[in-house]
Amino acid sequence: MITGKNYIGNEPSTLNGTAFKTFDPKLNLETEWTFYEATPEEVADAVDLAWNAFLEFRYFSGMKKASFLRKIADNIEDLGDELVQIYCKETGLPKGRAKGERGRTCFQLRTFADLVEEGSWVNATIDTAIPNREPGPKPDLRKMKIPIGPIAVFGASNFPLAYSTAGGDTASALASGCPVVVKSHPMHAGTGELVASAIVRAAKETGMPNGVFSNLNSSGIEVGQQLVKHPKIKGIGFTGSIAGGRALFDMAAQREEPIPVFAEMGSINPVVFLPKALKLKGKEWAKTYAGSITLGTGQFCTNPGLLLGLRSNALDGFVRTLSEEIIKIIPSCMLHPNIISKYDANKASVLNEENVSVTAEYSADVAINHARSTVVKVKGEAFIDNPRLHQEVFGPFSMVVECQDEHELTHAISGLEGQLTGTIVGVENELGAYKTVIESLENRVGRLIFNGVPTGVEVCPSMQHGGPYPASTDSRFGAVGIDAIQRWVRPISYQNWPNHLLPESLKNENPLGIQRLVNNEQTDAPI
Amino acid sequence: MITGKNYIGNEPSTLNGTAFKTFDPKLNLETEWTFYEATPEEVADAVDLAWNAFLEFRYFSGMKKASFLRKIADNIEDLGDELVQIYCKETGLPKGRAKGERGRTCFQLRTFADLVEEGSWVNATIDTAIPNREPGPKPDLRKMKIPIGPIAVFGASNFPLAYSTAGGDTASALASGCPVVVKSHPMHAGTGELVASAIVRAAKETGMPNGVFSNLNSSGIEVGQQLVKHPKIKGIGFTGSIAGGRALFDMAAQREEPIPVFAEMGSINPVVFLPKALKLKGKEWAKTYAGSITLGTGQFCTNPGLLLGLRSNALDGFVRTLSEEIIKIIPSCMLHPNIISKYDANKASVLNEENVSVTAEYSADVAINHARSTVVKVKGEAFIDNPRLHQEVFGPFSMVVECQDEHELTHAISGLEGQLTGTIVGVENELGAYKTVIESLENRVGRLIFNGVPTGVEVCPSMQHGGPYPASTDSRFGAVGIDAIQRWVRPISYQNWPNHLLPESLKNENPLGIQRLVNNEQTDAPI
Repeated sequence: MITGKNYIGNEPSTLNGTAFKTFDPKLNLETEWTFYEATPEEVADAVDLAWNAFLEFRYFSGMKKASFLRKIADNIEDLGDELVQIYCKETGLPKGRAKGERGRTCFQLRTFADLVEEGSWVNATIDTAIPNREPGPKPDLRKMKIPIGPIAVFGASNFPLAYSTAGGDTASALASGCPVVVKSHPMHAGTGELVASAIVRAAKETGMPNGVFSNLNSSGIEVGQQLVKHPKIKGIGFTGSIAGGRALFDMAAQREEPIPVFAEMGSINPVVFLPKALKLKGKEWAKTYAGSITLGTGQFCTNPGLLLGLRSNALDGFVRTLSEEIIKIIPSCMLHPNIISKYDANKASVLNEENVSVTAEYSADVAINHARSTVVKVKGEAFIDNPRLHQEVFGPFSMVVECQDEHELTHAISGLEGQLTGTIVGVENELGAYKTVIESLENRVGRLIFNGVPTGVEVCPSMQHGGPYPASTDSRFGAVGIDAIQRWVRPISYQNWPNHLLPESLKNENPLGIQRLVNNEQTDAPI
Repeated sequence: MITGKNYIGNEPSTLNGTAFKTFDPKLNLETEWTFYEATPEEVADAVDLAWNAFLEFRYFSGMKKASFLRKIADNIEDLGDELVQIYCKETGLPKGRAKGERGRTCFQLRTFADLVEEGSWVNATIDTAIPNREPGPKPDLRKMKIPIGPIAVFGASNFPLAYSTAGGDTASALASGCPVVVKSHPMHAGTGELVASAIVRAAKETGMPNGVFSNLNSSGIEVGQQLVKHPKIKGIGFTGSIAGGRALFDMAAQREEPIPVFAEMGSINPVVFLPKALKLKGKEWAKTYAGSITLGTGQFCTNPGLLLGLRSNALDGFVRTLSEEIIKIIPSCMLHPNIISKYDANKASVLNEENVSVTAEYSADVAINHARSTVVKVKGEAFIDNPRLHQEVFGPFSMVVECQDEHELTHAISGLEGQLTGTIVGVENELGAYKTVIESLENRVGRLIFNGVPTGVEVCPSMQHGGPYPASTDSRFGAVGIDAIQRWVRPISYQNWPNHLLPESLKNENPLGIQRLVNNEQTDAPI
């Protein structure tokens, strides 16, 4: 049941916060629930509780943290149909998507549970003493990763489950030993509250300190600002727009003690179509891309918003088929009236730029809040000269850039801002001729894809979801997969520390049986 | 031979830059050499060359990069006595220190050579495809670390070799595949030029692209500012003051594309003396600490500037012996008149604060630019209430804080800014009683030391040299040891990428024979 309250640690709470409602984009109506924004006192209480919880939680064993994470996943599943229904109502997304995303969320939680239960993720590194070394004795030194402190997580509009309340940021932070304060996304505050209730229940059931998790409702920017500026918050996870992520980054950088901000922001995900592939399979690729561009109403950060090719009949044919195919796909609903009005406005400003021609725009009537898919075309030179054409148009939109030669193509790619993904569509034996093109793309992206589509982000250790700025604020880390835990930890060394006082991960006996680097050798043996 | 010129890539260069001189603090005279500050054109040329070099250098094999790093070390050793003499002249430091630091510098270069020649440092992670997985096929994904681009390195005043021109930042960046532009430290520009000549020679001898290294003279702040703001510079390494490091951090954070700044800044390195240790061995510890506080005229970032204990006769005795012993140590020369005048000024402002009493100050005549060692004492309450007493006094200075009980001691520690190190001096059987004290210290430092001194930083994989802000700007990384290479790289994933186009580290055959995580298992086997 939705109460509209915040969770300040384990306690539901409202203190006269501004009331707001979520929205059903399919019905074009407010939902029946009223939410109460967290007040400054509630935000401060949540952070204080998180700090106190941290002092205890940071020493919890991997096994204990794993039981908490697994219980969260179980409890989310136990929410059953109520969660799916509220999710669909607050987002306009279909049931299948809700269930798929719930599965992914629980998979992520259990993956992190396995990781911390196993324990080797702390990168234990040990160099034993050499007392009689010349000119001076070598001390015993042992290093591992420890958590940095309470983390504020900002839920994503387009992933109400997998990148929000109990999503990748929360799961990785809790796994590391950092308490989490979530700023719930105002567009799906009901979904957020239900998931928060599952986390709070899990925290109680597995004996976590009160404050290990809080959930704050917020419809404006004040709650987020207060969190980012609070001295006891030590890191930020965010998924959303460039403007939003950059504002948080700037605020965090200006603190007396700056803190890391991991913002996964915009991306237009360039796709390069090489000539032979277009000639041999242009139609198939056009059909595949019509599907990828419109998937989830284009509301994925990996949506292919930029398609580059060399001037040729094959490219013309590809654009023709893509345009025909995309028009055949029935428009679907966007997450919120604000999202579709931004989509329309961003599209209009691209169409207002010189040298941009529309090759496809869905023109029949559409239901309210349903997005008209659009494909536009521009020449390479115009694209290179006008960085406004590099802006993301969040939704079912893509721009084809026709380059006159390989040189112009390389130039168009190397002038791009950082991207989450870059894709090469080609025939194997033509790749050698486009080495410079491929290398330019490699230098601009976090993930390179061959003969595929960028939508669909596999959750596994070898996935990198992040990229050079502004794809993310810190290209050295990513939000997907087990390495996401490394964002919330720092190394600490213990020098000549008594064995019985060392953390379990560093004791001579290796009681956890983890992999360690001991005197430059990987081993799970005791010392 | 010192020419006073910059190296713009491999070419010595001067273009009417401002002339300046280095200084011999022992003679209190300018040295005979004149240096010419890099002009804006020279800075721009160095960065453009570095960018072009990057496009080639980033693909060089570990073996090729290793040959470059080893040749740099050989060439530095070949500089022989000339380097040692210039080092001593420009710093006032003794010959033994010059030779020791040279050894450490070459050791670091060779350690990074070994690391990249072996190759496993790229953290290759592979998940092979599962084409028939339900509901959709799993793609082949392979991830590794790649270099981020040209790095600007700011030399440290107090480590002219090991943390300057060819120091840890330069060695780790070159090892990663990132070209380096050094902003040479104006106090030891001659030492810097000699080392730069060794690097340039090595670059030519081992076939590196021109621009892989440049050395820029600079006596003001303009060269550094231009580097940090240049769009083709992708990361910053800095060792120095909090004010200097923070200025660079702010500048980098305000760029259109923010870049990471790894600044190792100030630290007062708290040392906690527990009661039994003081009672049993107070005199020995006092003698040891008199040595540590004055080592290298107190000009180490790990200098113990803060000694904390509980009010007792044993603490009084410790302070008495420390004060007697430190006066016996003959004052030594500081690096530069600016450094000693800052030392005197910072000391004076601490002495001006209320409740601070001097327990030792060297009062006999001293040679010019030689520093008077000083120990002061303050009560815990006064220390907690006055954050100005937490400021670093760079030089042979330490402050004893007398706490009335364990609660006050914990409070004093948890209120400290981030520190490079924290030390516990105690008898093993009293440690259990001070769990809260130890945990508070753990939360504030990058390295915990038991029964030792913080000065002396072992170079090995398990060393962490860095800490919570302001010890460093990014506590998740450190400047010492092989993990320093991780500051200059980012992960990239290749999805369904053709095997013959993959980097060697990710090919099925594992041609480099490195350790990889393949389908969640560590192995060096081919696929």
